[in-house]
Amino acid sequence: MITHAHATTVALTGHLMDTGILARVLDDVLEYGGDYRIEQLDLGRQHEDESRALIQVRAEDAELLDRIVMRVQVHGANPVDPGTAITRPAPVDGVFPEDFYSTTNLDTFVRLDRDWLTVDRAEMDCGLVVEERDGRPFIRNVPVSDVRAGEAVVCGAHGVRVQMPPAVARGEEENFGFMSSAVSSEKPQALLVRQIAERMREVKAEGKRILWVGGPAVVHTGASPAMVRLVRAGYVDVLFAGNALATHDIESALFGTSLGVDLAKGSGVPHGHEHHIRAINTIRAAGSIAAAVESGILTGGVMHAMVEAGKPFVLVGSVRDDGPLPDVYTDVIEGQRAMRAQLPDVGFAIMVATMLHSIATGNILPAAVPLVSVDINPATVTKLADRGSAQAMGIITDIGLFLEQLARELAPE
Amino acid sequence: MITHAHATTVALTGHLMDTGILARVLDDVLEYGGDYRIEQLDLGRQHEDESRALIQVRAEDAELLDRIVMRVQVHGANPVDPGTAITRPAPVDGVFPEDFYSTTNLDTFVRLDRDWLTVDRAEMDCGLVVEERDGRPFIRNVPVSDVRAGEAVVCGAHGVRVQMPPAVARGEEENFGFMSSAVSSEKPQALLVRQIAERMREVKAEGKRILWVGGPAVVHTGASPAMVRLVRAGYVDVLFAGNALATHDIESALFGTSLGVDLAKGSGVPHGHEHHIRAINTIRAAGSIAAAVESGILTGGVMHAMVEAGKPFVLVGSVRDDGPLPDVYTDVIEGQRAMRAQLPDVGFAIMVATMLHSIATGNILPAAVPLVSVDINPATVTKLADRGSAQAMGIITDIGLFLEQLARELAPE
Amino acid sequence: MITHAHATTVALTGHLMDTGILARVLDDVLEYGGDYRIEQLDLGRQHEDESRALIQVRAEDAELLDRIVMRVQVHGANPVDPGTAITRPAPVDGVFPEDFYSTTNLDTFVRLDRDWLTVDRAEMDCGLVVEERDGRPFIRNVPVSDVRAGEAVVCGAHGVRVQMPPAVARGEEENFGFMSSAVSSEKPQALLVRQIAERMREVKAEGKRILWVGGPAVVHTGASPAMVRLVRAGYVDVLFAGNALATHDIESALFGTSLGVDLAKGSGVPHGHEHHIRAINTIRAAGSIAAAVESGILTGGVMHAMVEAGKPFVLVGSVRDDGPLPDVYTDVIEGQRAMRAQLPDVGFAIMVATMLHSIATGNILPAAVPLVSVDINPATVTKLADRGSAQAMGIITDIGLFLEQLARELAPE
Amino acid sequence: MITHAHATTVALTGHLMDTGILARVLDDVLEYGGDYRIEQLDLGRQHEDESRALIQVRAEDAELLDRIVMRVQVHGANPVDPGTAITRPAPVDGVFPEDFYSTTNLDTFVRLDRDWLTVDRAEMDCGLVVEERDGRPFIRNVPVSDVRAGEAVVCGAHGVRVQMPPAVARGEEENFGFMSSAVSSEKPQALLVRQIAERMREVKAEGKRILWVGGPAVVHTGASPAMVRLVRAGYVDVLFAGNALATHDIESALFGTSLGVDLAKGSGVPHGHEHHIRAINTIRAAGSIAAAVESGILTGGVMHAMVEAGKPFVLVGSVRDDGPLPDVYTDVIEGQRAMRAQLPDVGFAIMVATMLHSIATGNILPAAVPLVSVDINPATVTKLADRGSAQAMGIITDIGLFLEQLARELAPE
Repeated sequence: MITHAHATTVALTGHLMDTGILARVLDDVLEYGGDYRIEQLDLGRQHEDESRALIQVRAEDAELLDRIVMRVQVHGANPVDPGTAITRPAPVDGVFPEDFYSTTNLDTFVRLDRDWLTVDRAEMDCGLVVEERDGRPFIRNVPVSDVRAGEAVVCGAHGVRVQMPPAVARGEEENFGFMSSAVSSEKPQALLVRQIAERMREVKAEGKRILWVGGPAVVHTGASPAMVRLVRAGYVDVLFAGNALATHDIESALFGTSLGVDLAKGSGVPHGHEHHIRAINTIRAAGSIAAAVESGILTGGVMHAMVEAGKPFVLVGSVRDDGPLPDVYTDVIEGQRAMRAQLPDVGFAIMVATMLHSIATGNILPAAVPLVSVDINPATVTKLADRGSAQAMGIITDIGLFLEQLARELAPE
Repeated sequence: MITHAHATTVALTGHLMDTGILARVLDDVLEYGGDYRIEQLDLGRQHEDESRALIQVRAEDAELLDRIVMRVQVHGANPVDPGTAITRPAPVDGVFPEDFYSTTNLDTFVRLDRDWLTVDRAEMDCGLVVEERDGRPFIRNVPVSDVRAGEAVVCGAHGVRVQMPPAVARGEEENFGFMSSAVSSEKPQALLVRQIAERMREVKAEGKRILWVGGPAVVHTGASPAMVRLVRAGYVDVLFAGNALATHDIESALFGTSLGVDLAKGSGVPHGHEHHIRAINTIRAAGSIAAAVESGILTGGVMHAMVEAGKPFVLVGSVRDDGPLPDVYTDVIEGQRAMRAQLPDVGFAIMVATMLHSIATGNILPAAVPLVSVDINPATVTKLADRGSAQAMGIITDIGLFLEQLARELAPE
Repeated sequence: MITHAHATTVALTGHLMDTGILARVLDDVLEYGGDYRIEQLDLGRQHEDESRALIQVRAEDAELLDRIVMRVQVHGANPVDPGTAITRPAPVDGVFPEDFYSTTNLDTFVRLDRDWLTVDRAEMDCGLVVEERDGRPFIRNVPVSDVRAGEAVVCGAHGVRVQMPPAVARGEEENFGFMSSAVSSEKPQALLVRQIAERMREVKAEGKRILWVGGPAVVHTGASPAMVRLVRAGYVDVLFAGNALATHDIESALFGTSLGVDLAKGSGVPHGHEHHIRAINTIRAAGSIAAAVESGILTGGVMHAMVEAGKPFVLVGSVRDDGPLPDVYTDVIEGQRAMRAQLPDVGFAIMVATMLHSIATGNILPAAVPLVSVDINPATVTKLADRGSAQAMGIITDIGLFLEQLARELAPE
Repeated sequence: MITHAHATTVALTGHLMDTGILARVLDDVLEYGGDYRIEQLDLGRQHEDESRALIQVRAEDAELLDRIVMRVQVHGANPVDPGTAITRPAPVDGVFPEDFYSTTNLDTFVRLDRDWLTVDRAEMDCGLVVEERDGRPFIRNVPVSDVRAGEAVVCGAHGVRVQMPPAVARGEEENFGFMSSAVSSEKPQALLVRQIAERMREVKAEGKRILWVGGPAVVHTGASPAMVRLVRAGYVDVLFAGNALATHDIESALFGTSLGVDLAKGSGVPHGHEHHIRAINTIRAAGSIAAAVESGILTGGVMHAMVEAGKPFVLVGSVRDDGPLPDVYTDVIEGQRAMRAQLPDVGFAIMVATMLHSIATGNILPAAVPLVSVDINPATVTKLADRGSAQAMGIITDIGLFLEQLARELAPE
């Protein structure tokens, strides 16, 4: 047994047993090479009660201790004696100080001297920059590529506190109880669809926006008409996708009937070069998707519906793209910025048939935003959860049938 | 280049190019160590025309040549000069003569002296027994375990001819065009459901029976109510399954509401010991599923609906079974016999969420019976096709949503 | 809040936090419709310490309470005040009394009046029969199909105690730490192979037997030579499999070189009828696999090596089997009995590329036997764990490379 | 039957039957809404002979006919009477004329008046720009994003001819026969490894370069040491990857031992935020991966080995990236250009555990470069083939064991 000279005590509250959060905190401490002693554990006696744990975390040196504390904050554990935050200037553009505080996706608070200040937004794997606005300190969450030399960056874990979204801490979401259990294709899917529809109605009623993230299988599975109905009924406030979804959608709208590649007859999806590069060229010639709609070139499909409904979309490219469409951000960091700009007021996120853009969105979403991932491939949902999006709830199902049933609930013909 | 002393010429007709059949025949010849020469090829000039190929097959010895000819008969290739059949007596019970003719799942004809006699039924991997009935020769298709010592078994490939089902030879099924292409989860699923519903209506209108093969996911995905509606509407004429489907269905009917494991609330499927073994014990005490229905113990679910509708089911056990239910055949060979006894008049087979019983059914089904395999796992469908069930057409989709939509088409509430 | 009149207190000890066991017990109580109150929780302060919990479980009626207690015994929770066991006679052959005690796969003890008697063996989903041997009470674990009318069967949960295997309770197995984390294909596989080899050497050194359960992919992936080396080196004490592994193995030995379907050249696996049914017929004619070895018909492959090494194998059939081979149990219940008869002294079980026989073996194995499941398909391992085999540890990897590396460790050429 | 006024005849040579190429050409004609008539078919009589087909293709209008001809050129079919090429100026930067010739990945030739000129390189989904170099016409293959207003772009299908790589046309690659059959995890993997090693030695002996494309699982599966040995032995001439492979590799090198996340002990891969963003920040502070190597910060792993060996790598970012590392191209179109610049002299490409970068590389590789895709997930290989990379040959296996065995063959310790 090594003696660990450095120690601090963290507190954890919530439904610790049911949710397995306590076990995960202890696991993380050991995994980082630290050790722990449970100082106190007040368990809810009944199922409804909250629990509270005090855990002494120990490590060989102060730096490691700091990193363990940052790590367990991912689960909502905060030091009992947080102290006040230390800042250091960023050495050059795009580089944090070495011991920068690395953020979680939880609501975060920083204490500079006495008061706790709320960080402007929650995003994981970023840094915290302290600046002055209107004569008062202001804390910005900043990705590493956006930090500028000399900006004051919070370092170490002192003076930082996080807060679990209440529903996650409770380990139960009233309407979404089904999802608390593990990812599975063996669930009553029709019921899940109704519950998601219900949640979407509530989110809209609260004046919040619904974010969709979609992959090209939305088109391949014949779900475009259902998706168009959802757009028109107002349930798609913003769409994140790549070049592929938009291109397949537009290709289908431009060539769907004239060339015999007839989705309506179910005769199969061509995997050809030719069609899609020609569709891309057509939109490039028009200047943009919106221009193609305006000029009457593009008259159907999901992208057309988004333009007609005046709803924003963010298309971010990838290295496998042909073209791409003129609306596509070819610089992925600029694309991430455009995605972030659409997050305010998002109250619900649904990710359909895409691994790349799902993970990208999961990376920048606050934990407080409920998130449903729908895919026929279990790996997509699992990877999303593994990346740290604990609020990701997965449904393994057929995209085509899922969207058709969801449209039936929310936008009956 | 080895000279192959032994040669024979086989003929192949149909849509050889579109279907890839010709390529598969040539592949098989080479794989078995033979060689070929294409003697003649009359290609359909237009898309609608049939093609006809004459292929000389060569092998080092007569035995290998015989085996190659048997092998390519799987694809409908027949010797131009078939000769007459040779029979030898089975040496002991359950054993064929060494060079027995191994059957395909195609309609098969045997020539003893001059006339071609039709084999009573088509099943692959069996032998052909010649016997007398009413003073005339009669050819029975017999699995190896059922042959009796002394029975006359057709040996070698002489005097045997097979016939492709017309639709397969044509390489297109009018209403089922979607399925001729490869297995994929990226197809317009809603359309597929409508096409299958349409085909089921036609099969019933022709007075044929619809065979279902199901796995326990029918219950887990919450599809039981949809399945019950299909049973009541007359679209499930016979059901093949294992102990698991029936047990989960009965467990759900017996304990579904009283014990809080509430499928209706979507709170998850228990994977416990206790419930299902108790359900099994209850039915064992009643004597049979039908007896449990009659005595009012079993009042809901798929098995209850089958009993009430007076429709037969065949449950065949497996080594992983608990119990099993009293209706389950614990001897798998007896179970196969019971399944075979249900095949006459089956005009359509649909396999849902089961690999084991799907392959078992594929093994005994004639190629002439169209077969749809529905599973969320692509491997199930692929394995079915690899086993030789060329008529197997696959849909990768969610079972729960699929059955709900099919019931909506065929048995609206 | 319903008042639950019936209550009992259960105790749980071990590494409750790290292992998540406590959370699972509480989950199960709620899932069954009961409620709980944590009466006492002594947490290990340090990582090495054991924890102990006292949980009051409440239910609406005595029967449900009994069932909840049985259920949580799966996790090693025992009533503080167990009382003494009640028995009732089995009503007819093959049927337990309605409220029979349903077993776990843990070491189990029954108290008839004052002393605790050890049950003869551990198997889940069975009943406990009390009888007299040599003038003393003796408790047998009996599957439902084997109980005889009038035998005294333990009913309810009174007077039954279970005991977690020490390693599982500790939540860590010294040499197998890698496996405590989740199933994943992203692990250092070469290291896993070395650890399994090490464990196998230890098991043999302790005089225990190693059980293998295998599927046909052992042959398809070209791993037969590696498997043969492991058999010869004494690391395969008993083999459970189906008709398929043995048939493919024998087919490869009989026809591997003569027919051009050459595994050694890597030119692909035939999925033909013909070969394998002919291989089966040959062995049926010989009478048994051993007879075919003795008479010089079968001269290579895994089954040949098992016969030569004098090691037992149990082949249990399934509904999809052709033939089958004469050694195959066609009655699955008899097959299960034959498998059970091979379990004494098994100290380690390894399951390779088979879902059906893996689950079947998991069903009858005591929890105390460590079990490794190796498959390229994650679903196999997941299903095994879901069925209740908590001691199942999974490796997602390529069977061919895995066996080749294992043979390199244990049986270098 | 519609009468199709417009017609042309295309010729196709090679092993048409074995390879299924003829069937695919006919399928494509029908899929595009055209029709065909086989004018002539000279089949190779023996297996070794080449076949030659003349196919009349018909369509309703000239534009559709042109597009069908372009489409079937993917399979190596060329018009019998090609005519001469027509060019039109690109209307604006980044836009082709509407009826531009869309390229295949085959060697391509353009006839301007009488002579056939060779296009500078093969890449699919691009256009052909005609310009003058040294007073002679020169044909450049240009992606749509790189075309400049006014450049002369070949339009329609006239005057363009393609040529299948000889090995593909033959339908057999002597040493790689195993791969001509379908993707499967059930192949003798050890043999495949030896064959790939052999091919790599040949490629190096011919003075060609070996291109690797890798995903982060190379690190997760513990294969880094094997990969490092392959780099040092000279079998990795250039590496394409994303931010993830490089980051995980560097994170492992920087924190692997100090933080208890010990790959060497197999105790699992952390999916934490913290570590990897800190690794990224460290390299950003150093300026580049090479600078971090030079300054002694980075002392191990795959990227370190590449830098030490003086071998180039191209890292292209994606929307899900954190950071990214300073070497990463954040603009995907610039990243594609950097990848293209590395293709000359590449004689073999191997893609390991990555879907995104595999498809990206498949998009820009000429068909003449043999390509092996290795992944534990069958979907990766299937998708690659579906995208048009017909030369993609897939191995479903465990990356860790695969690379360890490959290193054992090529770079024994």
